[in-house]
Amino acid sequence: MSTVSRIHNAEQNPRIKAVFDDIRSARGTDKINNLWHYLAFDPDLLESVWADVKSVLVDESLIDFKTKEMIYLAVSIANSCTYCVHSHTAAAKARGMNEQEHAELLKIVTTAARTNHLLNALQVPVDPQFNADTKA
Amino acid sequence: MSTVSRIHNAEQNPRIKAVFDDIRSARGTDKINNLWHYLAFDPDLLESVWADVKSVLVDESLIDFKTKEMIYLAVSIANSCTYCVHSHTAAAKARGMNEQEHAELLKIVTTAARTNHLLNALQVPVDPQFNADTKA
Amino acid sequence: MSTVSRIHNAEQNPRIKAVFDDIRSARGTDKINNLWHYLAFDPDLLESVWADVKSVLVDESLIDFKTKEMIYLAVSIANSCTYCVHSHTAAAKARGMNEQEHAELLKIVTTAARTNHLLNALQVPVDPQFNADTKA
Amino acid sequence: MSTVSRIHNAEQNPRIKAVFDDIRSARGTDKINNLWHYLAFDPDLLESVWADVKSVLVDESLIDFKTKEMIYLAVSIANSCTYCVHSHTAAAKARGMNEQEHAELLKIVTTAARTNHLLNALQVPVDPQFNADTKA
Amino acid sequence: MSTVSRIHNAEQNPRIKAVFDDIRSARGTDKINNLWHYLAFDPDLLESVWADVKSVLVDESLIDFKTKEMIYLAVSIANSCTYCVHSHTAAAKARGMNEQEHAELLKIVTTAARTNHLLNALQVPVDPQFNADTKA
Amino acid sequence: MSTVSRIHNAEQNPRIKAVFDDIRSARGTDKINNLWHYLAFDPDLLESVWADVKSVLVDESLIDFKTKEMIYLAVSIANSCTYCVHSHTAAAKARGMNEQEHAELLKIVTTAARTNHLLNALQVPVDPQFNADTKA
Repeated sequence: MSTVSRIHNAEQNPRIKAVFDDIRSARGTDKINNLWHYLAFDPDLLESVWADVKSVLVDESLIDFKTKEMIYLAVSIANSCTYCVHSHTAAAKARGMNEQEHAELLKIVTTAARTNHLLNALQVPVDPQFNADTKA
Repeated sequence: MSTVSRIHNAEQNPRIKAVFDDIRSARGTDKINNLWHYLAFDPDLLESVWADVKSVLVDESLIDFKTKEMIYLAVSIANSCTYCVHSHTAAAKARGMNEQEHAELLKIVTTAARTNHLLNALQVPVDPQFNADTKA
Repeated sequence: MSTVSRIHNAEQNPRIKAVFDDIRSARGTDKINNLWHYLAFDPDLLESVWADVKSVLVDESLIDFKTKEMIYLAVSIANSCTYCVHSHTAAAKARGMNEQEHAELLKIVTTAARTNHLLNALQVPVDPQFNADTKA
Repeated sequence: MSTVSRIHNAEQNPRIKAVFDDIRSARGTDKINNLWHYLAFDPDLLESVWADVKSVLVDESLIDFKTKEMIYLAVSIANSCTYCVHSHTAAAKARGMNEQEHAELLKIVTTAARTNHLLNALQVPVDPQFNADTKA
Repeated sequence: MSTVSRIHNAEQNPRIKAVFDDIRSARGTDKINNLWHYLAFDPDLLESVWADVKSVLVDESLIDFKTKEMIYLAVSIANSCTYCVHSHTAAAKARGMNEQEHAELLKIVTTAARTNHLLNALQVPVDPQFNADTKA
Repeated sequence: MSTVSRIHNAEQNPRIKAVFDDIRSARGTDKINNLWHYLAFDPDLLESVWADVKSVLVDESLIDFKTKEMIYLAVSIANSCTYCVHSHTAAAKARGMNEQEHAELLKIVTTAARTNHLLNALQVPVDPQFNADTKA
């Protein structure tokens, strides 16, 4: 059940095929996840979202791949996105997150949630030494 | 401006003093952040929150300290907690996060936010291969 | 699966029947969506919620119906409400939102989500010229 | 700093005066909180929001006033609404919430936040016995 | 479908068995809800989460059990946690919340949501008299 | 107060100058909002965020500019982003949103928030006719 139609024979559209081929190459697998099949209803959006995701999670950068997936997963949990939680838990495991690290991630995320709600409730003034602004 | 009173001469209460001393020792500094000064209005809550935070962010564990602070910060951003964003950006920097890593963290968090909203809008069915449940 | 019971023979209660008749008339269809069937467990709440929704989405006003449904949908996506996303995507389409406008809505919503998280992370001071307050 | 102008001499408008008089009478004080002064930019919205709030927080009902304010505050904390957290903490205290109950409320809210994030992360299937739906 | 595996024969692990026995004793039932079965993948996390939940929802305290479950439920609704909404609606009913109180809770929560969004939109300055901070 | 430093003499960096010039041209004003001044701490992020925002809010598309800003604002309210609420209320007004339309937007957003929380509380099953998925 979805709010858009999954495209049939999507790869007859060369723009969609190009993105799907790039996904297969980047992921090293023939499997294209559901997200991309449904997003193919609009090739512009498909290209734009894939470009963003690829740039963050596929390209090399300072932060290693496992850590990037764990941060991505942490945000997805906080934003209550069911699909994202499933896909990025799987991706973090594929990038090397073991069961103990998964449990530790959950501990960090849930403790952050706890103090986030606590500070939103207490409305404590921010300490001046946290300020990074050189303008003042 | 806060919803509770900041306690004056808080450390005359030995339970509060014990927590503050432990914070100073854990952080290696005499400075006690505002959060703890205001939380001292209820020593039970103070002890409980500090025990949680210490266990996650001060004790040694599998995930290194810089990464833990970055994950904690990512959740705090998603939960829109002003105080937490300030304090954990400062803490992540103190644990070694440089400016480039900060920018990269922002890129990961904001891209996750983008796809979180996208998937919540599309309501795409979760791929069966994401299932980690051995029960079925 | 729900946290309340769907009422059977709900329209034997004249207050419920009056609301259901009004919904049928306003929507121009005999179909009553699940929300109203379950909400009928409390006629007061049913009347109050329908009055609110009717006033916003059924009555004529300055903003046209398609735009109102698109704004309603945007909020429902941000609040991660599965039922609301499904029902208001369908309603926006019924009010004339075509596939291209749907894609464009998703682009706006996901870019907003991105900059919302970015600004919550940066904690940039608000520009004085944004202030609409004539009091100061 | 606000996104709308605070109305000067607002009570020269009889609709605004009627609402303000009703607020004074309901609250038993001459003080009109800032919210109502700014909301007065649109008398329709002012009347509608006050009617809602009055019905929930001023009229007698099954749940006592202190508990109602505490539930209202809990939601406001979770939704990260600064003004609401301040005003409903003050209101809950005015309705009798003492310091210990305030601390206990914070304990409940922050523990709920913790398990909310945990369950959103684990995506555990809902137990069939939680289902209240008699339809199936 | 879950992001972790449900443990089989979990109670062969004495730490898991101790927690499950304590849950059975606290709840007065042999039924262990799904949450705990899945959380058992990490005994540390299981012990820590159960200790938190027990301290808030099972131990005697100032606030009565029905009210505590209702506050917990209100936060779970605001955080859009499907499992938590189901389990804490059931728990609040088990603690004595009747259908009318359930409807009234929904009225409070949804009105709070309304004014939370309104105030986040208006950005009204907080009234000085809400300040509980004795420091200034 | 911010978590990053505002760059001084930012336009000595040609990449930053190019973005600022493009902003001035797109907005038809010499004023560069604070967001861009602080974001300039990382030219990559500055270019990427500006490209996204420009594509959504500056380029011509199917949805008119006023509506696009109102949808953007609605999401920013729901995500509780103070800076974004201020800047996009101002932008929507600059694009032609009058006071009555602003009030109507608030009515739509707050009613959506109300039913979002209601449906998250009731967990009503989604009506099959909302399904747009042609796959099944």
